Amino acid sequence: MPVQLEVRTENKSELRDISSKVKEAVSESGVKQGVCHVFVPHTTAGLTLNENWDPDVRGDLVRALQALVPDVRFRHGEGNSPAHLLATLVGASQTLLIRDGQLLLGTWQGIYLAEFDGPRSRRVLVKVVADPD
Amino acid sequence: MPVQLEVRTENKSELRDISSKVKEAVSESGVKQGVCHVFVPHTTAGLTLNENWDPDVRGDLVRALQALVPDVRFRHGEGNSPAHLLATLVGASQTLLIRDGQLLLGTWQGIYLAEFDGPRSRRVLVKVVADPD
Amino acid sequence: MPVQLEVRTENKSELRDISSKVKEAVSESGVKQGVCHVFVPHTTAGLTLNENWDPDVRGDLVRALQALVPDVRFRHGEGNSPAHLLATLVGASQTLLIRDGQLLLGTWQGIYLAEFDGPRSRRVLVKVVADPD
Repeated sequence: MPVQLEVRTENKSELRDISSKVKEAVSESGVKQGVCHVFVPHTTAGLTLNENWDPDVRGDLVRALQALVPDVRFRHGEGNSPAHLLATLVGASQTLLIRDGQLLLGTWQGIYLAEFDGPRSRRVLVKVVADPD
Repeated sequence: MPVQLEVRTENKSELRDISSKVKEAVSESGVKQGVCHVFVPHTTAGLTLNENWDPDVRGDLVRALQALVPDVRFRHGEGNSPAHLLATLVGASQTLLIRDGQLLLGTWQGIYLAEFDGPRSRRVLVKVVADPD
Repeated sequence: MPVQLEVRTENKSELRDISSKVKEAVSESGVKQGVCHVFVPHTTAGLTLNENWDPDVRGDLVRALQALVPDVRFRHGEGNSPAHLLATLVGASQTLLIRDGQLLLGTWQGIYLAEFDGPRSRRVLVKVVADPD
């Protein structure tokens, strides 16, 4: 069964590190060899992997993503079409690999909830699947 | 075995809702706990999850994606390099989670074939995988 | 266990075809029905599927992706924030389907490591998972 994480965001737009929560879910699953699917059931947020060390990278990413939104006349009444666009560009899911009970992330890779229409309380689903025998 | 959906698009660029077809494939698989991989075997179309309610969101997305294409001098003779670019940005696959025979989508999430070089007849592959025992 | 590919890139930015290496990993796994997860453990490179025939498409994609980077003032000291942005837009993983021992790619689909901060030696992880019985 998928585990559901609750993630509280604090800004309109931010990258929130969920690496430790995802690692905990992997650890609690007891799975040693398998994959870990992470999924965001929202349409104005996404999931991405990026640098976990210099926080300036996250700041740069957030500002660059915002600046990427083209100046078209959006019609959606809620006014958050830019957030929907960024959600589509970043994507709602990631599939990670597990070896010997550990997520196979690169040294500099962190897992981020990409918030584009916060602050909000967001859900992230984590499903760990063991390799078939 | 993957199920193959046929999706007819009617515009140069559009987001076509394939949610009910994907749900049908999940239902017909009989799988109760597992994952559902959706894949587009094309290079000028993609797959995305986004809002399923206000159709203005899809219109905004299509126009914003088109406006995102930078004004560089494309060399590819077919003239559809913008479509190839958008296919890479949106992505060709999505992995969805299944619990109790249902796709775990958010309330507002629909599954869309993103057409960037239509109108065409497109294929979408859906593979439902049950959790190993 | 995932197979690790070594991929040498030769330019600052390029799309390097890894299709034959991934197909080899699938073939060596002996898996007939299943999925193939491909993952890049880097934060300035990504993975994408796109046209495998006219090399002008890759050139167009590389130039368009570079041109997409907005002109914001990046703060990250290493100066490669544009590469981090493009890695997030393109994505770090792909899930491919396997039927009868073959990857289910479209006729024109190749698998590419997208290098945005090269030249470097990159790693790509390939994990082939058979369907459970």
